[in-house]
Amino acid sequence: MSRPLKLDPDRLFPAEGRTRDIARALYAEVAGLPIISPHGHTDPTWFSTNANWSNATELLLSPDHYLYRMLYSQGIALADLCVPDKQGAPATDPRAAWRVLAENFHLFRGTPSAMWLGHVFGEVFGFDVAFDGSTADLYYDTINEKLASDAFKPRALFDRFGIEFLATTEGPQDSLNPHHAIHGSGWKGRVVTTYRPDAVIDVEHEQFADAMGVFAERTGEDVYSWDGYLAAHRKRRADFRAAGATATDHGHATARTANLSYDEAERLFRTILSDSWTPADAELFRAQMLTEMAAMSVEDGMVMQIHPGSFRNHNGGLFASHGRDKGADIPMRTDYVHGLKPLLDRFGTSRDLSIILFTLDETVYSRELAPLAGHYPCLKLGPAWWFHDSPEGMRRFREMTTETAGFYNTVGFNDDTRAFLSIPARHDVARRVDCAFLARLVGEGRLLDWEAAELAYELTNGLVRRAYKLDQNVPTPAAQAA
Amino acid sequence: MSRPLKLDPDRLFPAEGRTRDIARALYAEVAGLPIISPHGHTDPTWFSTNANWSNATELLLSPDHYLYRMLYSQGIALADLCVPDKQGAPATDPRAAWRVLAENFHLFRGTPSAMWLGHVFGEVFGFDVAFDGSTADLYYDTINEKLASDAFKPRALFDRFGIEFLATTEGPQDSLNPHHAIHGSGWKGRVVTTYRPDAVIDVEHEQFADAMGVFAERTGEDVYSWDGYLAAHRKRRADFRAAGATATDHGHATARTANLSYDEAERLFRTILSDSWTPADAELFRAQMLTEMAAMSVEDGMVMQIHPGSFRNHNGGLFASHGRDKGADIPMRTDYVHGLKPLLDRFGTSRDLSIILFTLDETVYSRELAPLAGHYPCLKLGPAWWFHDSPEGMRRFREMTTETAGFYNTVGFNDDTRAFLSIPARHDVARRVDCAFLARLVGEGRLLDWEAAELAYELTNGLVRRAYKLDQNVPTPAAQAA
Amino acid sequence: MSRPLKLDPDRLFPAEGRTRDIARALYAEVAGLPIISPHGHTDPTWFSTNANWSNATELLLSPDHYLYRMLYSQGIALADLCVPDKQGAPATDPRAAWRVLAENFHLFRGTPSAMWLGHVFGEVFGFDVAFDGSTADLYYDTINEKLASDAFKPRALFDRFGIEFLATTEGPQDSLNPHHAIHGSGWKGRVVTTYRPDAVIDVEHEQFADAMGVFAERTGEDVYSWDGYLAAHRKRRADFRAAGATATDHGHATARTANLSYDEAERLFRTILSDSWTPADAELFRAQMLTEMAAMSVEDGMVMQIHPGSFRNHNGGLFASHGRDKGADIPMRTDYVHGLKPLLDRFGTSRDLSIILFTLDETVYSRELAPLAGHYPCLKLGPAWWFHDSPEGMRRFREMTTETAGFYNTVGFNDDTRAFLSIPARHDVARRVDCAFLARLVGEGRLLDWEAAELAYELTNGLVRRAYKLDQNVPTPAAQAA
Repeated sequence: MSRPLKLDPDRLFPAEGRTRDIARALYAEVAGLPIISPHGHTDPTWFSTNANWSNATELLLSPDHYLYRMLYSQGIALADLCVPDKQGAPATDPRAAWRVLAENFHLFRGTPSAMWLGHVFGEVFGFDVAFDGSTADLYYDTINEKLASDAFKPRALFDRFGIEFLATTEGPQDSLNPHHAIHGSGWKGRVVTTYRPDAVIDVEHEQFADAMGVFAERTGEDVYSWDGYLAAHRKRRADFRAAGATATDHGHATARTANLSYDEAERLFRTILSDSWTPADAELFRAQMLTEMAAMSVEDGMVMQIHPGSFRNHNGGLFASHGRDKGADIPMRTDYVHGLKPLLDRFGTSRDLSIILFTLDETVYSRELAPLAGHYPCLKLGPAWWFHDSPEGMRRFREMTTETAGFYNTVGFNDDTRAFLSIPARHDVARRVDCAFLARLVGEGRLLDWEAAELAYELTNGLVRRAYKLDQNVPTPAAQAA
Repeated sequence: MSRPLKLDPDRLFPAEGRTRDIARALYAEVAGLPIISPHGHTDPTWFSTNANWSNATELLLSPDHYLYRMLYSQGIALADLCVPDKQGAPATDPRAAWRVLAENFHLFRGTPSAMWLGHVFGEVFGFDVAFDGSTADLYYDTINEKLASDAFKPRALFDRFGIEFLATTEGPQDSLNPHHAIHGSGWKGRVVTTYRPDAVIDVEHEQFADAMGVFAERTGEDVYSWDGYLAAHRKRRADFRAAGATATDHGHATARTANLSYDEAERLFRTILSDSWTPADAELFRAQMLTEMAAMSVEDGMVMQIHPGSFRNHNGGLFASHGRDKGADIPMRTDYVHGLKPLLDRFGTSRDLSIILFTLDETVYSRELAPLAGHYPCLKLGPAWWFHDSPEGMRRFREMTTETAGFYNTVGFNDDTRAFLSIPARHDVARRVDCAFLARLVGEGRLLDWEAAELAYELTNGLVRRAYKLDQNVPTPAAQAA
Repeated sequence: MSRPLKLDPDRLFPAEGRTRDIARALYAEVAGLPIISPHGHTDPTWFSTNANWSNATELLLSPDHYLYRMLYSQGIALADLCVPDKQGAPATDPRAAWRVLAENFHLFRGTPSAMWLGHVFGEVFGFDVAFDGSTADLYYDTINEKLASDAFKPRALFDRFGIEFLATTEGPQDSLNPHHAIHGSGWKGRVVTTYRPDAVIDVEHEQFADAMGVFAERTGEDVYSWDGYLAAHRKRRADFRAAGATATDHGHATARTANLSYDEAERLFRTILSDSWTPADAELFRAQMLTEMAAMSVEDGMVMQIHPGSFRNHNGGLFASHGRDKGADIPMRTDYVHGLKPLLDRFGTSRDLSIILFTLDETVYSRELAPLAGHYPCLKLGPAWWFHDSPEGMRRFREMTTETAGFYNTVGFNDDTRAFLSIPARHDVARRVDCAFLARLVGEGRLLDWEAAELAYELTNGLVRRAYKLDQNVPTPAAQAA
């Protein structure tokens, strides 16, 4: 006999009556607002082709590093979860992989994955029995059946989810054809790209050489000269702008920036292109490029997002067998105070620059990020990120940034996900946690109820819209055609 | 139509009934206790001259970096807020600046500034309508009118606020004339100084050369020889003691200390006075001087306060145009464990030394400061400081220090402010937050109610009085005359 | 007139009604479960000889660094507390020392020591009046009388406390005779050892030379050659396994590991044995030895515990007069991400290795430890340790690790104590705090009630049993005799 699945309508609100009531009232006013997703990793071809997804495992399990990292940590082989290695997808039956997830779903108790999947199962697919070993096949068959229907095509779900804006992430080496196809298709969904040049900036990235080759082809510039390289960035940024992008994104190992002279930078670039660069050179070049990107943002108005502090591919054995992005990225201590100073000394007082800072190191919230954002006009704080995109993580973010940076130096929520079906769940969690935080402030006499209601709206809609300049680069079919 | 201003009598207490009731009862017993302010930055001439303040903007806005940093972070020019730059005060109409504050007051939602100003407006000035754009002029005119009255002269407010003790901060280069004038005036208010020698210790301080010159003049010592320099410190410390000081204060970049031999120290001092010192020399000299100051404290009994970890004047552009102390100080990671060891190896077991440690790096509360203070007889913990002098910050301080250091290795509250009118608000916030914390411990069966009541009194009065030795150097007019 | 002593039956549960009720129900199901203590520092001779303890001071005060560090921090001399120095136990009357504790017991308000002692006094000794100066002698006499009775002999208390498993800690230089005596005695109590080789690994340990000498004797190996040294470790690990050990323990200054070639390691070992090693050599050797110990754990299945990050004997003056372990160990920042990588690159994907990580640096919970344990199959998280083994510390541990590592990558509770009488108190605190955390998750709709009940059992019994492989090396008298 299976257990029922029932989402608590008051989930994530404070447990006790007075603040729970306040939170419930605040949430009621923002629960139905459209979803604005300014930073994420969905695949634009889903929306250009609008093809049906294949099956539960390939859509929900094998691409979701939150899920397979936890199962792997408990001794389950990635092959048993249909996670591809360097030879490609394993021969595992997707249904068998799905059963492994179901039988081990208790491992996710207390994690955001459990909340997100619970929402997907209950709200998106309409299940009313709980997910476990006894219902694995029921879930698998039902999900696959629904995924094959018109109502579960990507554009139909996009509309059903009430998504107003969805940003994907591409690199300078990527074609923007899916985006052009979307914009030329007549479909009204606003899906835009984001300029993420890591692969042509980070010489330690294993795709650097190839990406530079494509970068040269797509721009027609001599990307192996410093001037040509910068010109190529300008060209591709313009391409991205034309495809609706309002932002760039930079996933560096650290928050270090540099402000070299032209000659120093040119010399460093030549070293990077030689075979004789050191890790210190690679780091300095990434640092210099953040400042170069800031300079271009001052010119073209693109909002910079900086996502530093992940030790990528920490598990050497797994990286050798499976390659990058397999749930083995581990956060590191990150220093923003010294790291950002060269860039800020050059552009810190500019009103034309906007930088959104993220962190995986929660210690910097109150010590570095809130004081920086509470002073510099160009700095804003992105929401709790990755491992911290969770009820406790989001609560700590508010508790440790609000008193110094206020609410208005933050930018609303990012789902940052490739798990498209979980987007409503993630935004719902964020809205609930923010309302719970506001409710506590009201309950403790630190905010008035009408102030909290205004803030709930701002945290859901106003701040993200302004921070990402969503109303300043609305693409039109004509603009795309140009 | 303007909204009402009404302070919640239960503000900052837990939101739910049981612990709220406990907190309310604890607070009732300490709410009316006198204010003891052992560390702050008010101007002693206010109390020596007892002249009326000029207007709302000059008193409440343009000197308050908490306020203008937030407004600046949102793109408002400092000139529009009457904040002076290196050319002096801008030509801005103070009323216009006040209106900017009023129109942007929502930016402070959730910050301690909003709570403090709310208290100042409601309790000190008696407003009953909320502060916003629609009431900016009403506020401006009413405040100015009151500021011109006898009831709002500095000494009248000092008495009305129930201040029992107020410490200001001066340097060795400063005359203590305002203090002498206060003590000779017959007024009973106890306003004393604190010895803060940073300007003659930190060669990287832009006032170092000038301050050394005045230091020489005031002491008649050869401050450019190591022996004369130390003798000059001793003389000025004695002057400060005579003017009622019970404490010194040290605002270093780091918590590093050193314990050099006489010869090494003498050589380092010569390097510092030459033109060839390096940043490492400057840092080592500051480190050595903390130990020298500790040695003098063992002699004269002055309590040392160490306030490390601020990256001063981080915004290079703003520092060039506006100079220091313009809201651009950013906290840094700080290491107390290795930093303090040389000093502690020399004086750590002394019963004659008392050092109060502060931090801007909250990660050290549970990891370093509580274990250090919970062991060394000479160490105590100052309250949550600066960016952390806030409801969440004070709560984290208690949660992360109490279990290892106990309550009795802490020293009560510091307001650390130059915003005189906010002193009652700040102490009230601290009392409420401490009572809320104690109430939770009682509610969770971790303290008995009578223990919590004793502790509420200790945190408000007993600990600060003993830690700062307030009953050991009560100045008398005779002592001042000497 | 003395105050009553009464333990709140709801202590450590949430203060407000709804979550309190949930916590109470969860706790009711686990309160009576047997105690499993897989890591601690009790003296095995207590259980081999089963002799009565002498008096309250020698049992409860002078060996408990939690108690005397706090009293010392407030200016009380260690000699007044019967804490031995290098000359041995001071001449202080134990009753006088006990009175000092009683008169200063208020210093422990809000600390776990107060809760633990309250439990010991109320539950173990049955007092119903509070402990303070007025009851010091009553306590002292009553405790001593009870300690002299059969009911308070070590084995009787072991049984009364419901201890199912108790691990002590010994080094390679230690005889295991007490353990052999226990196992040969016919007593059913399961007391086993743990292999802690620090004294023969850390050349900076003041007992290194002596310990190496004994290590050679006990093993008959040439421990001064690299091969012989490793062989000696293997022999002693086998001895410890035979005496019931399932785990090793490593108390290093940092979490650094290394993976040197055989030749490099052999050369380093020779340097360590010479007089010319540097601190960097000592650190590298400790780092290499963690990897060597991991290699042996892959062979023999012993679970590794790594306890890094304590700056031992920070107080130079006290170390000179009193020696090590006198409450002067201070936590330091610790880097696990880079530190563990060499070991993990070699064994990280092994299914045969299990490492339990501890920390004194809470900042790594969410940034490093939870992401590491939530990925690597060989890593699990030990409970909140030492200064953090407290209600707030345990709550932070759960809040900062659960969302990324889940509950199932943790290992239940460790009491880590030499204070045998406090073991039930410590486990009770852990069970209450875990139930309070689970109750909040249920109250906030993040767990279902039956899930929380399963987890409460796992956190108390299931996880520790599996993590420490308690059911895989059950010693028998025959095995001991072999």
